[in-house]
Amino acid sequence: MNAVDIREVGPRDGLQIEEPISTEAKLEFIDALVATGVRRIEVTSFVSPRAVPSLADAEAVAAQLNRWQGVTFSALVASLNGARRALAAGIRQIEYVVSASDGHSRANVGRDSAASVALIAPIAELVHEAGGQLEVIVAIAFDCPFDGPTPPQRVAEIARSAMASGADALAVADTIGTASPIRMVDVLGRVRAAVPETVPGVHLHNTRGQGLANAWAAYSEGVRQFDSAAGGLGGCPFAPGASGNIATEELAYMFEDGGIATGIDIDRALNAARLISDLLGKPVASNLLAAGGRSVPAH
Amino acid sequence: MNAVDIREVGPRDGLQIEEPISTEAKLEFIDALVATGVRRIEVTSFVSPRAVPSLADAEAVAAQLNRWQGVTFSALVASLNGARRALAAGIRQIEYVVSASDGHSRANVGRDSAASVALIAPIAELVHEAGGQLEVIVAIAFDCPFDGPTPPQRVAEIARSAMASGADALAVADTIGTASPIRMVDVLGRVRAAVPETVPGVHLHNTRGQGLANAWAAYSEGVRQFDSAAGGLGGCPFAPGASGNIATEELAYMFEDGGIATGIDIDRALNAARLISDLLGKPVASNLLAAGGRSVPAH
Repeated sequence: MNAVDIREVGPRDGLQIEEPISTEAKLEFIDALVATGVRRIEVTSFVSPRAVPSLADAEAVAAQLNRWQGVTFSALVASLNGARRALAAGIRQIEYVVSASDGHSRANVGRDSAASVALIAPIAELVHEAGGQLEVIVAIAFDCPFDGPTPPQRVAEIARSAMASGADALAVADTIGTASPIRMVDVLGRVRAAVPETVPGVHLHNTRGQGLANAWAAYSEGVRQFDSAAGGLGGCPFAPGASGNIATEELAYMFEDGGIATGIDIDRALNAARLISDLLGKPVASNLLAAGGRSVPAH
Repeated sequence: MNAVDIREVGPRDGLQIEEPISTEAKLEFIDALVATGVRRIEVTSFVSPRAVPSLADAEAVAAQLNRWQGVTFSALVASLNGARRALAAGIRQIEYVVSASDGHSRANVGRDSAASVALIAPIAELVHEAGGQLEVIVAIAFDCPFDGPTPPQRVAEIARSAMASGADALAVADTIGTASPIRMVDVLGRVRAAVPETVPGVHLHNTRGQGLANAWAAYSEGVRQFDSAAGGLGGCPFAPGASGNIATEELAYMFEDGGIATGIDIDRALNAARLISDLLGKPVASNLLAAGGRSVPAH
């Protein structure tokens, strides 16, 4: 049986660029996401509340996660201090983001790319001491809004450093949604050559309409772990032009329609997308939500 | 050098579901499309003006096409009479659409699928006598809004009948935008096995967000001919839920960004999408138009 593993990042990447909504509203959203059947949810990030006010309630969200069973909840961090906060809040699955470009790294975390790479080892040590697992997400793996195209070899080098520094998993992120399938295959091929011991996941944005095509190209290269956000929410506040993760319901449709199991119920995924649209009080960028599922008579 | 051949169908499939715009506005749109560098444009269809009022000026549009050189203009027909009209208007590249399901075929042209297949031979004869070429487009190649899933073998049978009846080229159409990459690969594989002498093109809709993923899957299977519409316009008036062709500018971006030549200038394609949005007085469904091209500093 073919299967993929989708990580819902709506509560984190989906909401970080939005006006803050209440913790209670976030928990209602997470509840709707759990109901879809998705097995992994990135619920928040432990970053500066001044920098990302909409995720200032990270500890409050984390404190409520024992409501749900059978789902792995994770959080994004960008520093050693963020990792400490996440662990103290009970999170054991940590994503640490490293920008492959200096321009975005400085805008995002105030240090260059090499300095961010140097933090992988101490963060991994901290996470492992607490019994947790660390995934390193290589952001800006294709283009930087400040520095231009990212050399693919730089992405492969960071991937190798991450695994050598104790990371348990890797993901490659098209943070500003400029990648296309040929470049996706190129970068993934270099990463896989550099770290043959693991298959990276991918984190994709649909900013230029390329998101699902890139997801399919990644699947064809052996990738089985995908980030997506309900309703195609999202963006990075420190990467101009970064909007819209690939929509969970459209990603799940792409796989399920072809018999590739995601564990996600499409109708419930549409419900979750509708809910977050209502909670935010604005439409979301999901063609599937507008069209509805494949509601043709089944024979 | 890798290259693909994109046929712009905005003036036909893009406009058929819209409120009619003036012939002059259409010619302005066609002029903007020619400026993109695209080499093939489906400019109208010769069908009943009562059924498709927005294309009632087919003869008037055709009469103006000698303004432009170096572009192949084509028209869609759905009957022998439509083919006669198109040829009389000077069109020599004809697309004849055959629905693979009886339900859609009856709704679209008032006869069943087999009766539509039976018309391929006389239409091909007529077109060839006039020195033209005939492409058969197999519509509803994945799902029918009335009859449910289309048996893939039915699509392959129609393809074989079309080539045996004198068609010069073939395309497979996901008319209501329900296909996904695995099913795309399955149907294309069966069609290629049935008609090894030709490689079909594909006509895709982005109704459920799957359009470019399907295009990439088709490319991976050897397809090099793609239909798309500026700004992702379009839909079929006789197929409920059919909206939005894949957007030409996003399709061209997908290929050009990876070094696959389309002949299309992305900035000019964005101009054409912006123009038709203005002429229709409404936004179009193009993420690339909203985000802009890959405007990062080039190194």
